[in-house]
Formats: sequence, structure tokens, C-alpha cells
Amino acid sequence: MADKSEKMKARLPRGLVDRGAEDIRAVEKMMATIRSVYELYGFEPVDQPLIEYTDALGKFLPDQDRPNEGVFSFQDDDDQWLSLRYDLTAPMARFVAENFERLPKPYRSYRSGWVFRNEKPGPGRFRQFMQFDADTVGTPGVAADAEMAMMMADVMEALGIKRGDYIIRVNNRKVLDGVLEAIGLGGDENAGRRLQVLRAIDKLDKFGPEGVKLLLGKGRWDGGKEGEGDFTKGAGLDEVQAAFIVAVVLHNQHVEAGLKNDVGKWNRVLEANPTAEAGFAELKEIEALVLAAGYGPDRIRIDPSVVRGLEYYTGPVYEAELLAEIPNEEGKIVRFGSVGGGGRYDGLVSRFRGEPVPATGFSIGVSRLMTALKNLGKLDTSDVIAPVVVLTMDKDTDSLGRYQKLVAELRAAGIRSEMYLGGAGMKAQLKYADRRGSPVAIIQGGDERAKGEVQIKDLIEGARMSAEIVDNAEWRAARPAQVTVAESDLVGEVKKILAAQAEERARGK
Amino acid sequence: MADKSEKMKARLPRGLVDRGAEDIRAVEKMMATIRSVYELYGFEPVDQPLIEYTDALGKFLPDQDRPNEGVFSFQDDDDQWLSLRYDLTAPMARFVAENFERLPKPYRSYRSGWVFRNEKPGPGRFRQFMQFDADTVGTPGVAADAEMAMMMADVMEALGIKRGDYIIRVNNRKVLDGVLEAIGLGGDENAGRRLQVLRAIDKLDKFGPEGVKLLLGKGRWDGGKEGEGDFTKGAGLDEVQAAFIVAVVLHNQHVEAGLKNDVGKWNRVLEANPTAEAGFAELKEIEALVLAAGYGPDRIRIDPSVVRGLEYYTGPVYEAELLAEIPNEEGKIVRFGSVGGGGRYDGLVSRFRGEPVPATGFSIGVSRLMTALKNLGKLDTSDVIAPVVVLTMDKDTDSLGRYQKLVAELRAAGIRSEMYLGGAGMKAQLKYADRRGSPVAIIQGGDERAKGEVQIKDLIEGARMSAEIVDNAEWRAARPAQVTVAESDLVGEVKKILAAQAEERARGK
Repeated sequence: MADKSEKMKARLPRGLVDRGAEDIRAVEKMMATIRSVYELYGFEPVDQPLIEYTDALGKFLPDQDRPNEGVFSFQDDDDQWLSLRYDLTAPMARFVAENFERLPKPYRSYRSGWVFRNEKPGPGRFRQFMQFDADTVGTPGVAADAEMAMMMADVMEALGIKRGDYIIRVNNRKVLDGVLEAIGLGGDENAGRRLQVLRAIDKLDKFGPEGVKLLLGKGRWDGGKEGEGDFTKGAGLDEVQAAFIVAVVLHNQHVEAGLKNDVGKWNRVLEANPTAEAGFAELKEIEALVLAAGYGPDRIRIDPSVVRGLEYYTGPVYEAELLAEIPNEEGKIVRFGSVGGGGRYDGLVSRFRGEPVPATGFSIGVSRLMTALKNLGKLDTSDVIAPVVVLTMDKDTDSLGRYQKLVAELRAAGIRSEMYLGGAGMKAQLKYADRRGSPVAIIQGGDERAKGEVQIKDLIEGARMSAEIVDNAEWRAARPAQVTVAESDLVGEVKKILAAQAEERARGK
Repeated sequence: MADKSEKMKARLPRGLVDRGAEDIRAVEKMMATIRSVYELYGFEPVDQPLIEYTDALGKFLPDQDRPNEGVFSFQDDDDQWLSLRYDLTAPMARFVAENFERLPKPYRSYRSGWVFRNEKPGPGRFRQFMQFDADTVGTPGVAADAEMAMMMADVMEALGIKRGDYIIRVNNRKVLDGVLEAIGLGGDENAGRRLQVLRAIDKLDKFGPEGVKLLLGKGRWDGGKEGEGDFTKGAGLDEVQAAFIVAVVLHNQHVEAGLKNDVGKWNRVLEANPTAEAGFAELKEIEALVLAAGYGPDRIRIDPSVVRGLEYYTGPVYEAELLAEIPNEEGKIVRFGSVGGGGRYDGLVSRFRGEPVPATGFSIGVSRLMTALKNLGKLDTSDVIAPVVVLTMDKDTDSLGRYQKLVAELRAAGIRSEMYLGGAGMKAQLKYADRRGSPVAIIQGGDERAKGEVQIKDLIEGARMSAEIVDNAEWRAARPAQVTVAESDLVGEVKKILAAQAEERARGK
């Protein structure tokens, strides 16, 4: 097995990543906060497995035109097709439909977990990523959608994002459907083109109004000019149709207030259309509800450019956007943009029940939000202290047993610590402790052992002393980088050093 | 979509489960405790994706003789085979090999997550389950294995399992290899049969000594008699060989103390064999190290019947067993048995590195351990209080806005609460609150609104009052099941009721 010539290459499949300690701890911390908000709103945890029958998931992925594209699928031994879930909503819909009778309704639930997309990976675009969702099933009223928008706003603030640094934008697919009907794209026969239009609008942030017009019209070349880069086929609208859609969508995107007025103006353009009319009425009700609860347009705002890429939305859609200009996953300083969103999907549970089961919910992109919070300095995990390292000066069983006992005593006192387990000498062991970022090293050689003593090295102070010219003899006496104490005083002395280090960190030294 | 005739069946693929609130909360709580022990020992979190190249995972699954059996696999669009991980160890080995230079060594890490087995599900046997692992890579010394055994013992006690209710059993594959050499099963040509022998021994708990002898010999019928049930082909040993193995393995399984003596006796049987000799020497060193750290045979014990089913172990193997007699996943009262285990796997990282990279680690079966802890009464999640429900007596937008404001105030005070979102009348709304287990309901009809008041219903007290014959007029006056207060007193009054309920729970009333 250890033959160089036969060795295998250790490699991660593309679009997948390993996660290190800092990210894992940051995500834990962030998710605990999100969970506490969901719980505060009365939501209950429930989760589904990562594998579902392919047909139960449906084909609702954005940007996928061929069946099964975008999904990892495989056949079970009874030949039925299974898939890895591409979101948390479709499995939840299956769960609610399967357990409908026994669940309280309306049913508020939340869940987090990995989802998978079998698509081309890119910077910040992975084939496995984590979502954290909340959903309410069983209520047609938009009070549920208003609640979702408020909960997203509360999540942002609970995470330390200041008011003004985020916005929850709300729109309604019915309004868009009305626009599409108004320009002659109503009816079942145009379902495919309507979806193309939605996907085009969803690219507004990425490609700008001119790019969206191309996607609404003949199509768009990635390289900017004909023949350059990949070509995305357009929805085939004429120029007037495309311009009208872009005008509606852009209407008040950058208007900071006066939300009621804007809905009014926008309304007049489409006032004859009953679908749009219903959509506007719902938006007005959402607006009234969030205002009554104290959520002004500085937190939740009606915005006609929100569409969300998923096909299954049927009513209100909403999106949480970070307005701060911070580095994104590619390291570019940008207005960070969407960190989550969702909407009403009245058809998803109904597919299984054969009766109307209205539902609404949203999803937070965990990695994306974590990246933003880290860049905003909101996910400090520096309170995790590296372990104290007990060096192993002698490697015979008796000595190792004695070191093991020292470590056990430290741990029994709640002090994170470990015995050095490698084969190296003292210098390399101290280097290891340094690499771990250890606060303290414990040394017991033959001399100390004979006297029943241990040496305790303050590695933080030691590093500073060797970096600085020390002229403060008093300070050195008060906190020397190394002390020798009786074995019985080990725990007390280590505690003292750790406390002094904590105090210095608190003082920002 | 809502046509009954066309509806799809909502069904979970077999061997997969949905998890409810109680289980999710219990697992969270349990994992936080396990994590704190791993951290105390100086381990760092790191995790790998759920998908790896199939060849990187290797074929080390127990009970799988055909290639790829037991694993969910699918082809990437570049035709390379990918698989869902079947454990957390193989992906970790890939990760360490890929990042070897930059990691501190020895490298202590932990991780938790879902793993997948494409096999026949059964009671308590799922195709997706969760593991929680800790591993140390880069140290050949058995001090690392001793540390693993101690850490498992500490995890058990941190979870509230009393000393005497669990045992960490330790053995060494080298001893078993020596036994097999002694009976003529050494050499590469017998690798397959040795694996069959290990798997047979691993079934000792399930089938008893006679069952194991059958599996070591000609084979075993599941039904107990020839021709009854499924047949498992045996390892083909003769009766004397099989009896010898069972004798060695059973030797001191039920001996409570005198561990050194037992190893001694066992040793003499095989004293001429150098592989077994090396194995014994390692077990003695582990024993000395754990004793020095204060872990006696009431916590960690050498036991020749431990083998572990995975093929990749090369040295010490260890297992955490619960001795308590409690219901298992099938509801049968049994000595609960293994909740986790592991061992040394010196070949796994080496496969990628072409140089020796020794490693050892263990895995806790999360669902199994949670089942045990729940049955031992150690995972109480009753501190989670269901939400206060604000009923919606009127459904117009203005009224909903007012209710929404009441809920927002309660939440702002940190009180878990929700507005009723369904369409039902007051009676059904109270039924909903009851179904949720809500502590309090808030009611504001037209009369109360006119006076600026709200009614607050204590649902816990209310339920008790309607169940009991109340003869304590004083108590009723002190804590009536329903009060009417000014809107401005809502939060204060709800807090008072919740505090009274908490006090009663604490008194066990």
C-alpha cells in the first residue's frame, strides 16, 4: 500500500469543498442565531433525508431546460430513480403531503442542510451547498408572506447587520403574470416563454438592463459581442415587449421611499389586468401588515424587479439583500446582493394531495451569508482557545503515562489540552504547539520529574517577549514567560496564565 | 395540478426517514456535548463534502463482497464515477493526504455528518445515518489509541451515562492476525478468508458462539435449520480451528476484572507468534497509559472479542458499549450494545501518499446513541416552550395588522409567539393552540379592541382546571385561567404567566 509507484491521487471532485475549523465554527454560530429567530416566530425543526424519488422532486430548477439536468440521479435496485435534493422545499412538500393529517395547520417549520446541483461550478458556485429554510404550509392569506419578510428582516438584525445595510424586497409573481398577459404571453401555450422571461429578469443584477433586454429578445453572447463566448437563446420577444418589461421591472428599483405612490403609478399602467390587479392587492396588504408591525420601507420594500429563479412560485416572492459594499466570494468589492429569498408555492404540496394546499417560505444561502458576515466582521470565532500542549520529553510507557496523567488533570479542570503524540524532539514539539496557536506548553524532563515539578511556558507572552525589546523589568517579574511549579500546582498555575492572556486579549493588547 | 386523478404519491424511499422536532433537538443537544469533549481534547473541526470520487473511497465496507455494492454511485459528466460517502473516515483520509504539508502533525480533527449505505434496510438500519468522528493522523504510537479510548469514556460520562453503565472495550487486530497465522490462515492468499473470519466474529453479539462457529465453518441458515431462511456461506474452517477461535475470542468477555492476568493467559496460548506478540505488547501499553491517567477496567477494558467490521483496521480496535438494559430501536429491552467504535487504520492515508501515514480514530453512531440516551432519560428537551398564539378574531387587513403588532411586541420581549394564520373560527384556533402545546393564547375581539384591552388565556392552567374539581378558591384567585388587561400590559402579564408555569414545571406539578 505504501508503494509510491501505485499511489492514488487524492483529489476533490470539482465544485466541492472541504471546510476548515474557522468556517465550521462561524457557520455554527450563525446558524444558532438564525435558529433562535425561527424559534421565536413559533417555527419547529423538521428535516428530510438527502435522497428522494426523482419524480417527487419535480423539475423546478432554474436555468435547466433538459429533464434531470442539474440534479444528481441514480437508480435504486428496484430500478426506480432517486435523486439528491436540489433544495429543501421540494422534500418538505413531499413530507407535508405524506403526513398531512397529523400535522397542525397552518404548519410552520424550519430545516437546514446540504443541497446539490449537478451543474458547472464556478467561483462562489458549488455543487454542494447549505440552505437554511423556513416554511408555512396551509394558509392562503398573505399575512404568512408578510411574516416571512419580517422574519428575514429580524434574522438580518439578529446577525448584527445594521438597519440600512440590508433590505427585504418583495414582489408578486401575479403582477409579472399580469404584465406578461398584457403583452400577449398569457395561456398554457406560452408557459415555457414566460419562464424564459422570468429567468431573464432574474439576471438583472448580473447583466444589467441591456443584458436582460437581449435575453428577452434574440439572445445574449457571454463575451458581449456576436460570436464571443457562450450564447444563451432569448425569449424571442420583440423590442417593444422587451422594453416594456424592463421598464416595469426597473420602475422603482432605486427609489428609496414613497412605496405606496410607486405601486399606484405602476398599477395604472396595468389597471385593466385582473391578474396584476390581484397581485397589487396582495402587495398592498403585505405592505399594510408589515407597517402595522413596525417594519418600514427601510427594512421591507415592494420592488418590481424581484422575480426569484425557481419555477414553482405562484404569488408573493421576496429576497433579502445586503446593501453593504464588501468582498464577495470572488474577493471583489461589490454591493453584496442576495443572501436568501423565497416566495409562495401553492402548487408544490398540491401535486401530491390533489387539493389546494397553499404554502410560502424562504431559504437562506448559508455559505454566502457567512462570507458576508465574515467580511462585515460579525462572525468572530477568536474566543476558541487552542489547546495547552503537554510535551513528551521521554517516550517510554511510564513517562507517557505520567504526561497522560497531567493532561487528564488539565482536562478535568475544563482546560482544553493534549499530549504531544508525535515522535519529534523538544524543539519540533514547541514548533507544533506554535503552529496550533497553543497558549501554554507543559514540560517535564528527568530533572523536573525527580523534583516532582513541571515547567509551564506561556507561549503568547514568550512570543511577545522575543518580538519586543523588553525594558519593563517589573512586568517581566509579574508575568514571566516561563515558570517552574510543583506538579500539584499545575492546574492552578495554567489557569492563572490563561486568565492573564484572556485579560490582555480583552484589552486589545 | 390540484386534480385528484393526476396526483402523485408522496412517499419516502425505503430505508430513509424524516426527523421530527424532538429528535432534532435531542441530537443537537447530544452533539453539542460530544463536541465539547472533542474540543477539550484539542481536536479541531474539519469536514468533507458528501460526494467523493468512487476510487478515493476504496472498498472497505463490511458485508459487501461485490465491487460497489453498498455504495450509491453515479457518473459525472466527464464519465468519472462519484459516490456518496459510506463513512467519514475515507473522505478524511483523502483530505489529509491532499493537504498533508500544511496541516500540523499529529493532526487531531473531528467531524459529523450524514453517511449513506446502499443496502437492505431493516429495523434500526437505515440507508442514511449520521456519524460523529474523531481522528488523529500522523502518529504510530498507541498513546493515540489510548487517548481515543479515554475520549470515548469521557464522552459517555459527559452525556450522563453512569460509570458501570458503559464500557470501552479494546482489542488489537494484530492479535487476531496472530491467531489466524497460528491456525494456518496467514499470507496474502488467505486475505479473503481472514476477512470472513473477522466478520463472523463481529456477529458474536447477534448470533452467539454457536452461530459464530457456523459462520467460521460451513455456513449458517438464518432460520436456524438447514433450508430455513437465507444462507450465509461460512469461512470454511474445520471444527478445531473454529472452536479455537471462538475460545480465544470468548476468553474473558465476561470477566469483570484481572485484566492483566487474562492477557497473560491468553498470551501463553499464542506465545510463539510474533504478530500476536506485537499486538499484546501494544495492548499492554494502552492498558498502562489509561491506568496512569486514572481510567480503570471499570471504564476501559481489554477484550478479545472486539473486531469491528471494517476491513481497513490494522492495529488496536475499540468499541463503546452501553451495558444498560433499555429498549433498542426495535423496542426490545436488551443490553443496548455498541454505540460507536473505531481503530487504527495505518493504510488509508498511505494509499494516497506512497509513504506510511499512521492514523487512528473512532465514529459514534448518532441516531443509535440518541435512541439509547432518550431511553435512559438523558435527553430531555421539555425546556423548549411552544409559542404563544395570538388568535385572529377578525380577518380584515386592519385587524390582522393589529394582531401582528401584538405578536411583534411579544417577540421583541423574547417571547416565542405567533399569529394564527389559518382561516378557522375561535374554537378551531384554540384547538390549534392546544395541538401546538401552546402555553398562552391572546384574544382580542371587537369589544376588547374598543376598550384597548386583550384577553390572555393560560392554556396550561385552563387545561388543569377543566380536568380537576377545583376546591381551592384562593388558588383560583391567585392564578385565574384567563385575565383581561390593557394592551400596554400584554407583555408583562404574559411573562408573569410563563414564569408561573415554569415554576410549576420545576416543582413537578
